[in-house]
Amino acid sequence: MKDRKKEFKHLVTSLDEVPQKILEGQEQKVLASPFRQQIHIESKMGQLNDPNGFSFFNGWFHLFHQSFPLKYTQKPNYFEQGWHHYKSKNLVDWIDLGQAISNDTYFDKYGAYSGSALPINNQLFIIYSGNSWMYTETDNWLRLPTQMGAWMDKNDQVRKITTPLIKGSLDKYTGHFRDPKIFKKGNIYYVIVGAQRKNLTGTAVLFKSERLMTWDLVGEIKTQFNKNFGYMWECPDYFDFKNKGILIFCPQGLKTKFNIFQNMNQTCYCVGDELNLSNGKFNGTIVKELDQGFDFYAPQTMLTPDGRRLLIAWMSIMNGNDPTKKFGYTGCLTFPREITVIGNSIYQQPVHEIENLYSSHLQGKQEINCEKILIGKGRNARDIKLNIKIQHNGIFIFDLFSDPQNRKHLRIILNAAKNRFIVNRAQSGINFEDEFGVERSCEFNPEKTVKLRIIQDISSAEIFLENGEKVFSLRVFPDQKQNYIFVNSLNAKTVIKYEINELRIMKVEGKKNV
Amino acid sequence: MKDRKKEFKHLVTSLDEVPQKILEGQEQKVLASPFRQQIHIESKMGQLNDPNGFSFFNGWFHLFHQSFPLKYTQKPNYFEQGWHHYKSKNLVDWIDLGQAISNDTYFDKYGAYSGSALPINNQLFIIYSGNSWMYTETDNWLRLPTQMGAWMDKNDQVRKITTPLIKGSLDKYTGHFRDPKIFKKGNIYYVIVGAQRKNLTGTAVLFKSERLMTWDLVGEIKTQFNKNFGYMWECPDYFDFKNKGILIFCPQGLKTKFNIFQNMNQTCYCVGDELNLSNGKFNGTIVKELDQGFDFYAPQTMLTPDGRRLLIAWMSIMNGNDPTKKFGYTGCLTFPREITVIGNSIYQQPVHEIENLYSSHLQGKQEINCEKILIGKGRNARDIKLNIKIQHNGIFIFDLFSDPQNRKHLRIILNAAKNRFIVNRAQSGINFEDEFGVERSCEFNPEKTVKLRIIQDISSAEIFLENGEKVFSLRVFPDQKQNYIFVNSLNAKTVIKYEINELRIMKVEGKKNV
Repeated sequence: MKDRKKEFKHLVTSLDEVPQKILEGQEQKVLASPFRQQIHIESKMGQLNDPNGFSFFNGWFHLFHQSFPLKYTQKPNYFEQGWHHYKSKNLVDWIDLGQAISNDTYFDKYGAYSGSALPINNQLFIIYSGNSWMYTETDNWLRLPTQMGAWMDKNDQVRKITTPLIKGSLDKYTGHFRDPKIFKKGNIYYVIVGAQRKNLTGTAVLFKSERLMTWDLVGEIKTQFNKNFGYMWECPDYFDFKNKGILIFCPQGLKTKFNIFQNMNQTCYCVGDELNLSNGKFNGTIVKELDQGFDFYAPQTMLTPDGRRLLIAWMSIMNGNDPTKKFGYTGCLTFPREITVIGNSIYQQPVHEIENLYSSHLQGKQEINCEKILIGKGRNARDIKLNIKIQHNGIFIFDLFSDPQNRKHLRIILNAAKNRFIVNRAQSGINFEDEFGVERSCEFNPEKTVKLRIIQDISSAEIFLENGEKVFSLRVFPDQKQNYIFVNSLNAKTVIKYEINELRIMKVEGKKNV
Repeated sequence: MKDRKKEFKHLVTSLDEVPQKILEGQEQKVLASPFRQQIHIESKMGQLNDPNGFSFFNGWFHLFHQSFPLKYTQKPNYFEQGWHHYKSKNLVDWIDLGQAISNDTYFDKYGAYSGSALPINNQLFIIYSGNSWMYTETDNWLRLPTQMGAWMDKNDQVRKITTPLIKGSLDKYTGHFRDPKIFKKGNIYYVIVGAQRKNLTGTAVLFKSERLMTWDLVGEIKTQFNKNFGYMWECPDYFDFKNKGILIFCPQGLKTKFNIFQNMNQTCYCVGDELNLSNGKFNGTIVKELDQGFDFYAPQTMLTPDGRRLLIAWMSIMNGNDPTKKFGYTGCLTFPREITVIGNSIYQQPVHEIENLYSSHLQGKQEINCEKILIGKGRNARDIKLNIKIQHNGIFIFDLFSDPQNRKHLRIILNAAKNRFIVNRAQSGINFEDEFGVERSCEFNPEKTVKLRIIQDISSAEIFLENGEKVFSLRVFPDQKQNYIFVNSLNAKTVIKYEINELRIMKVEGKKNV
């Protein structure tokens, strides 16, 4: 059992309460990190986790994330957990607006947890989970979840609604009841909340409201597969896409099946007909992993004014063993993605706004036949696009983050002899979390030309296979010499057409402090 | 297309035809290898592949293997391929009898390929595949397979039968028609032969004979799964086990499915009712992988006088990229195993004769809780037995071949949070064949005490999970410092009982030359 008293001993409600010396010390630690990202929002200090409140309001994209800025301070370890706020015109350059929601009320004293946002009547409506504990004095710590509201005005000022929107976790659920995602259909607002039933199985619960201040229970999302699918669902999301309904959720405790569900926790989705909003029935049956990489969790979607469905996620898993910990921070977000739905599958691609970052462009065609070829060099972020035609039974190898001797690398293998696509990060730099395996893989069809796209940053790669039908997101922690890209083809010839777009560093203006 | 003329330019039928200087040069290369095994039969020179003629005759276990002793000689590269012979009283110490069958007749001029043996009337009857090529003068090289016979007398002298036992590959099959395995039922002898149909699918074909010199076709083994299961089957084997019939075969060209069939080629088995010997019908339906390790192929079984079914296999895959190649040799055999059949599963264990090798014994009980503990040290072969009880959601890590800093290791992971057993050889020493992945895994049940047994040699490990229901055999090529064994338990406590038996080096008497 965690020593919760110790955990919350130095609970503060604002960083203003923390000695300036400690904040500066933490900032110095972060600055020493060789792993800082160039085009991904990452923790400024302490832990970044779930993206929150992803929305478009007042001419800006707004993006918040869970922030626990002093998580890695020592003696004392200050507890302060809430929402950090960024906004952007183009989804690549950001203004940093600092802490937006903090743990400063009775209902969110122990954390202003995840939630979502929707522009309503010239304001941004926010709904999030307040975390509190009861019976702390008797040491029988019991979670008290409260779904809280807030309004953000056009000056980006957030004002909490003092009355809880949804109190407690109803009778059927444990204290694990959180992460409300709001959406609107017709004139009605809905929120979908992640929950744990009292029999310790996970589910999602639907509420509706006409006027936002009171919420009526519709009921659980009723599917064929959620009777016993993980012990808790976090971060559910629901949206319509061209007459289909898409449910995204993060089940915890799934056992590995073959080569899926290998991570500590999962992110899954299911495509069906539109959700029945009057009773919660959802007829989708095929549950897939949204991202098969090592590091992906807690995604959130939003609809842009031009009708695109965007998604962003936490590019990590709830372990916190990243090698950046010793520099006083962990966690970054994925690059924002546009998603489409074809058949039962979600397809993901980086948002086209990435082109704002293109600084130099290289393209070429290369016939590779059993020899290692250097196609790129340099330490910076890139958007790499490949068309790959592998001869019968050939094996194409793409080594990113390679050292000059090609001993270290993030190795991507397209083994046509076995129809097997492999991402191997065993030699990619500092090892971490290999207790969940060092490889991720899926099937691919080598008969046709294979499309591969990779967003590479200083310490991450997002690998989009076949127009993003399969995606593998992951962190790597390479050393300074690992800045070469090699390709090879074993057994038989491979012909690649490639395009390497070197990316400038994103701009982040605004507050220096957390 | 291979340049076959070049391949066979320096074809010899005996090593006597090769200059002594070349043989000695090869021997010197092999001696320089740091990877020589201590308790496994391995190549003395050049390539060792399939075990052949595994049998008990005249008071001795006889074991042959495919041998291509001068495969790695340069300019010229001498071609000589046949059977190398060992015999043993106890399955652990051997007498080396040198080359037993060579490519010295018309029908086996291009290789005396794999086959089997059975003691008959005070002699050992041998049946094997002769490989020849037709139309070599027109460069339309066409395989001509011939099933050949031989008798070995009590002085271990082998005399070939000059008349082929089965000529060619019948009308329905391509030139890929080989690897006869002989067995007897009642008064009738049977052989099962691996074959490729003209539509390029694999199968096995059954023949019968009363007097050995002529063989009648029974027909193909007829199963539900062999219509289209690989493009060729090699090394089929069939035996009865307590009223069940067990078919073992090596299909080539299977695509990877989830976490099985990951190797270049596979070894599969299927348990059913006894094979119908009059028409070849076999009703087994569930096909499993016999060994889920990186290196396992071409197994062969035999029945001991005391009624045990033993199995031995080539601990490699037909690629030949082992790091030992630069020392002029590749390939070793597994340690001999006893197999039993329970339900639809084969269980494998090292033969109990391994106890002849036990030299020192260490046993202990250890409670491990999030700290690395050293439980063994030293560079030698071992028989390690573990009982592992993992607390809820704990992760037990067993690092063999670790360096003192624990940066390199063959890592075995029992992740109870994910029910996942992982063997990761990414950091185990010299990397090879990672284009087929660096991990192998399966499900396991962490609720009960897990039994794990590992036969460790200088450059191999055979990992037996749950009494050998799952086995992972593999080669590793560590450096000299990788001789530590560490255990750890993450997340929660693990209690292990362990027994480490250090093993003396096997004795091999006999001919010095190949």
